[in-house]
Amino acid sequence: MAGNSFGKLFKLTTFGESHGPAIGGIIEGCPAGLEIDLNAIQSELNRRKPGQSEIVTQRKEPDVVNFLSGLFEGRSTGTPIGFTIENANQKSKDYSHIKDVFRPSHADFTYEKKYGTRDYRGGGRSSARETACRVVAGALAKQLINSITIQAYTSSVGALELKKTYQELDLSEVEDNAVRCPDKDMAEAMISKIKAVRKEGDTIGGTVSCVIKNVPVGLGEPVFDKLHADLAKAMLSINAVKGFEYGSGFEGTKMKGSAHNDIFNSDGTTRSNNSGGIQGGISNGMDIYFKVAFKPVATIMQKQNTIDKDGDQVEMQGKGRHDPCVVPRAVPIVEAMAALVIADHLLLQKISKL
Amino acid sequence: MAGNSFGKLFKLTTFGESHGPAIGGIIEGCPAGLEIDLNAIQSELNRRKPGQSEIVTQRKEPDVVNFLSGLFEGRSTGTPIGFTIENANQKSKDYSHIKDVFRPSHADFTYEKKYGTRDYRGGGRSSARETACRVVAGALAKQLINSITIQAYTSSVGALELKKTYQELDLSEVEDNAVRCPDKDMAEAMISKIKAVRKEGDTIGGTVSCVIKNVPVGLGEPVFDKLHADLAKAMLSINAVKGFEYGSGFEGTKMKGSAHNDIFNSDGTTRSNNSGGIQGGISNGMDIYFKVAFKPVATIMQKQNTIDKDGDQVEMQGKGRHDPCVVPRAVPIVEAMAALVIADHLLLQKISKL
Amino acid sequence: MAGNSFGKLFKLTTFGESHGPAIGGIIEGCPAGLEIDLNAIQSELNRRKPGQSEIVTQRKEPDVVNFLSGLFEGRSTGTPIGFTIENANQKSKDYSHIKDVFRPSHADFTYEKKYGTRDYRGGGRSSARETACRVVAGALAKQLINSITIQAYTSSVGALELKKTYQELDLSEVEDNAVRCPDKDMAEAMISKIKAVRKEGDTIGGTVSCVIKNVPVGLGEPVFDKLHADLAKAMLSINAVKGFEYGSGFEGTKMKGSAHNDIFNSDGTTRSNNSGGIQGGISNGMDIYFKVAFKPVATIMQKQNTIDKDGDQVEMQGKGRHDPCVVPRAVPIVEAMAALVIADHLLLQKISKL
Amino acid sequence: MAGNSFGKLFKLTTFGESHGPAIGGIIEGCPAGLEIDLNAIQSELNRRKPGQSEIVTQRKEPDVVNFLSGLFEGRSTGTPIGFTIENANQKSKDYSHIKDVFRPSHADFTYEKKYGTRDYRGGGRSSARETACRVVAGALAKQLINSITIQAYTSSVGALELKKTYQELDLSEVEDNAVRCPDKDMAEAMISKIKAVRKEGDTIGGTVSCVIKNVPVGLGEPVFDKLHADLAKAMLSINAVKGFEYGSGFEGTKMKGSAHNDIFNSDGTTRSNNSGGIQGGISNGMDIYFKVAFKPVATIMQKQNTIDKDGDQVEMQGKGRHDPCVVPRAVPIVEAMAALVIADHLLLQKISKL
Repeated sequence: MAGNSFGKLFKLTTFGESHGPAIGGIIEGCPAGLEIDLNAIQSELNRRKPGQSEIVTQRKEPDVVNFLSGLFEGRSTGTPIGFTIENANQKSKDYSHIKDVFRPSHADFTYEKKYGTRDYRGGGRSSARETACRVVAGALAKQLINSITIQAYTSSVGALELKKTYQELDLSEVEDNAVRCPDKDMAEAMISKIKAVRKEGDTIGGTVSCVIKNVPVGLGEPVFDKLHADLAKAMLSINAVKGFEYGSGFEGTKMKGSAHNDIFNSDGTTRSNNSGGIQGGISNGMDIYFKVAFKPVATIMQKQNTIDKDGDQVEMQGKGRHDPCVVPRAVPIVEAMAALVIADHLLLQKISKL
Repeated sequence: MAGNSFGKLFKLTTFGESHGPAIGGIIEGCPAGLEIDLNAIQSELNRRKPGQSEIVTQRKEPDVVNFLSGLFEGRSTGTPIGFTIENANQKSKDYSHIKDVFRPSHADFTYEKKYGTRDYRGGGRSSARETACRVVAGALAKQLINSITIQAYTSSVGALELKKTYQELDLSEVEDNAVRCPDKDMAEAMISKIKAVRKEGDTIGGTVSCVIKNVPVGLGEPVFDKLHADLAKAMLSINAVKGFEYGSGFEGTKMKGSAHNDIFNSDGTTRSNNSGGIQGGISNGMDIYFKVAFKPVATIMQKQNTIDKDGDQVEMQGKGRHDPCVVPRAVPIVEAMAALVIADHLLLQKISKL
Repeated sequence: MAGNSFGKLFKLTTFGESHGPAIGGIIEGCPAGLEIDLNAIQSELNRRKPGQSEIVTQRKEPDVVNFLSGLFEGRSTGTPIGFTIENANQKSKDYSHIKDVFRPSHADFTYEKKYGTRDYRGGGRSSARETACRVVAGALAKQLINSITIQAYTSSVGALELKKTYQELDLSEVEDNAVRCPDKDMAEAMISKIKAVRKEGDTIGGTVSCVIKNVPVGLGEPVFDKLHADLAKAMLSINAVKGFEYGSGFEGTKMKGSAHNDIFNSDGTTRSNNSGGIQGGISNGMDIYFKVAFKPVATIMQKQNTIDKDGDQVEMQGKGRHDPCVVPRAVPIVEAMAALVIADHLLLQKISKL
Repeated sequence: MAGNSFGKLFKLTTFGESHGPAIGGIIEGCPAGLEIDLNAIQSELNRRKPGQSEIVTQRKEPDVVNFLSGLFEGRSTGTPIGFTIENANQKSKDYSHIKDVFRPSHADFTYEKKYGTRDYRGGGRSSARETACRVVAGALAKQLINSITIQAYTSSVGALELKKTYQELDLSEVEDNAVRCPDKDMAEAMISKIKAVRKEGDTIGGTVSCVIKNVPVGLGEPVFDKLHADLAKAMLSINAVKGFEYGSGFEGTKMKGSAHNDIFNSDGTTRSNNSGGIQGGISNGMDIYFKVAFKPVATIMQKQNTIDKDGDQVEMQGKGRHDPCVVPRAVPIVEAMAALVIADHLLLQKISKL
């Protein structure tokens, strides 16, 4: 109930703070008999890992997933899949400077007020470290949904915005550069921008776009659990996300119905796809595409004024190794959450008609 | 499970097609002892009602809510509150022209494929008529959350966009005009625009902004049921919605952390509010504000090519009385869904600490 | 959340007090395309109806179910099925004598303390009248589960206990007498007993047995949602139920493993069936059978001492028309709840393996 | 969804097979700020541990619980509490004899048919080993519910049945003997019985009774989540349980209403307690008491005929170290499940009225 589960039939429940012994989770509802590629799961986790390139945090976190149950002789057994990821970084010595201080635009203040207490070391439960568990479950979901492909990419860093549509890009190039932008020139500009921002001790926001292909017609459970409503919740549940739009999105609000409507071809496909692959909350077989907004990381390497627990003004400065821009590492997280939504709705769809 | 419930503790489950005998719902989890103002609930329903002004659909739907249980001697009893709203408009004669036709950018095609059948009269379950039930429950939720106020307003119609922030507007003027825009000049321009679009037999999109004030610190259940994640899902579950952003939103992605961070005052309030009243998924006591994108209504009074069930190309034209722009009537729906989220999280918060 | 829903995928949510305008419910998760026999549903409701024989309450309640949604052209559409049953008996004049009094072994005291208020007329929400909604949903579930048959019968009234096993009885004779006992001699004795008890102004308890045949292997979701665990909860949720046992039940605790174990035949059936058709929480294809204990009705036509809201001792006597023994009318309710459990688990089972 | 969670607000989700690396779980919904006594949790686990006396299985399983999250500086933080218990016994060598064989009255056959596969080593997920996780969560729940005490005890072994009511016993003596029966003479007889049965290579069933004291008035969520309905489900979800009764139970069905009704004292307590502390599904402040039936353990040390996967008849004999009677070790499990129910309903009750 308390907000640590995602999904109804294909369901992930997670636990763990950044500086406890381990984080982990339980994946329920994976049908029995699925052949599981453990290396593919670890590979996804590596896409999210700190230290993978020079534009992300240089923290050392090996992030190896250990499966504890639910798999036997290479296949899912239908029983819950428990897993843990040990926290390598759990020494507490570096956190005395934030023990009694509320960092601006972090969750320190709100956790303290909500729970009356908090594990202040490295953000505790509010640390983005918990998203590693999402990536594990999402990687498994990707194996379940099989021929449905999910590909996210960096579509903007600060004001540097990729104007090309996803159809104009070669999405197989996403992993070719550190910023995960499938446009070589733009990628270079983005990387330079992130380096410049880091040099200032500052951070910058950005957006991630995502495309889901080969979705069967029929996924989505109106009226509240529309497919895009669940995608929106999935994305907004990721740390630092401030917005979501799918299909024609905010720009579509400026259009007239006569231009916005997607006219059918005889086979049920549509000529345009302003609907973003979803009509009435249910997938229509066209590509699903959406965009997610990430704010700039709150931890900066500059002096800031803030308050402590007593309300006294104090000066603080970020320590440690943080991401100057969260977007490159967010790409696999966006994919993972999308995969969880699609897997869940694939199962839900199995019981919608006789 | 099948997508007709919203909320965990304060929970609405709805039923009903546009052309069956009635729509309705069950509200669970309203604590016992709440004094209920039935007139206030009907008033909210009237804000959503067709025919209320010259820029909305002229259909005649009285939309009177009947409460069947859960209330006794003017107060909630803690038992489920059942209600119905009769469908005045349930004669089927007008719908033969769409019986075998899939209207572009409607849910006809997807419902047919998902369920293998559908009530084709007036959209059936996919009709926005079901949102009337949301308004009933939301109006009751508003009475529960009491001093927390929720005010939505039209912030754009097509390209006509209100540039003022909500702080620069007098939100008490929202109901002063038919388009529900609290800026008189802009409201007039919007109304003219909607009339012009209607004259063309066309429709237009727009955005609704919403402000929630007096929210206590501590609402939101990380890591998946963050307050803004539930707001996003609530909004995306409304018919025709294509996007959601809160706080600094998509614009905030262009900012640097040093500019985006909200610096604390000594009392725990913040100087700026790019966070939109939520940090780490938990309300921080500042105003919550967000914006919702609505696409143009798909039913237009122009000829369009489309297909029938056999995949044959046919020509069709909208009949009946439809909204040229959904935004004015969406304002109370946005408020209702926001109220459901806040009420649910208020109850959830009661058990977060000893 | 607040306890008014039953089931996960095939789900019933109910509302209604005995003396409000109506009771009703929403059935979610019925797959689209099911041909619905409305008469069969009303027939089940008639089996539960007051006034059907001389040994049950003589209250007049027509109990006609009205379906409001989810059905179209004789079939389920996959959307929620809303229904109401009007309360004919809703005049409040007869209830002043219990307004401020807590009847012994009723829910008056506990509702008052839990909610701080209650609809005292006829028991309000605690009235067994709500079980009518269960019978409606159960009757629909019976149509979904199709070839699986569920037959309950009265197996004891007071100390009059049917010693024959269900295999020794002809269950097609259950409806042949007013007490619903498929043994003619025992039925007559039970009827005489109930009449005698009523004459004393007293009431008597009894048990209902139930047999489910043709269950496919594989229903049940360990480790918590074992099939028999859900059956137990279903039964204990019925008013006046005090106990549940399945298979060898309490008597089986006296046996040794060597005698209790069910030895397999080559086809996977078992020679004995002490397991009651369920092993490890999952149906094994053998008959499921269980027994449910009902306490004597608390409303008696004799003077009793009790207390009022102020804790003062008062004398009271039951008024109105009540059942001297709840068991005959409980038979269709037991079947209905069993049908809900089986329908739900049939759907759950569809996603247990690839 | 798939049956691995118990509870709504105070919620346990478990994972793990008997012969994987570890079993474990996640406890959600424990309010922040609860002081946690880790030793008390381990002590409860020790009460369930194999090898603790000469009448239980002599397997060596240290069963040490490791907490991974949700606790900080001795208190709950409001975040999910993850834990694992390593499987010491995970070598697979002993299980070749059951790999392709379906043991009588075990879950081998049903798991194989349901999931199409199974981890055959030691019962896999169907092993009672998973109840260790329940004991961990229940021990934590006991600390939350604080002054409410839960005490279970062995009330019968085979035909040896304790006739005294719980009021006639000194429940502080439960732990004084290996069989956990608070009557010295009966305990000795039971122990002798179990030893004799074991000598035969056989097993025997029994019952566990449980008493919950100091329960506040108001726990329970009608109409489906009645307090006793949730207790029934909790108990029936434990391995080997075949029946549940509370208050007057099955015997109460033989009584007349005039004798069964519990007459109020002026303070709201009742003279008798046939209601078993629950009226209308809601606790009334009197002691809650119930009884649980356990079948004889299916694994016996005698030759039995059974079938293999191909349906061929084979002869088999239990190996390894198994319990001749499950009841003594079931006592802490019954308490744990009762504690989970009470903790959950305590939290649910906090939001039932303003």
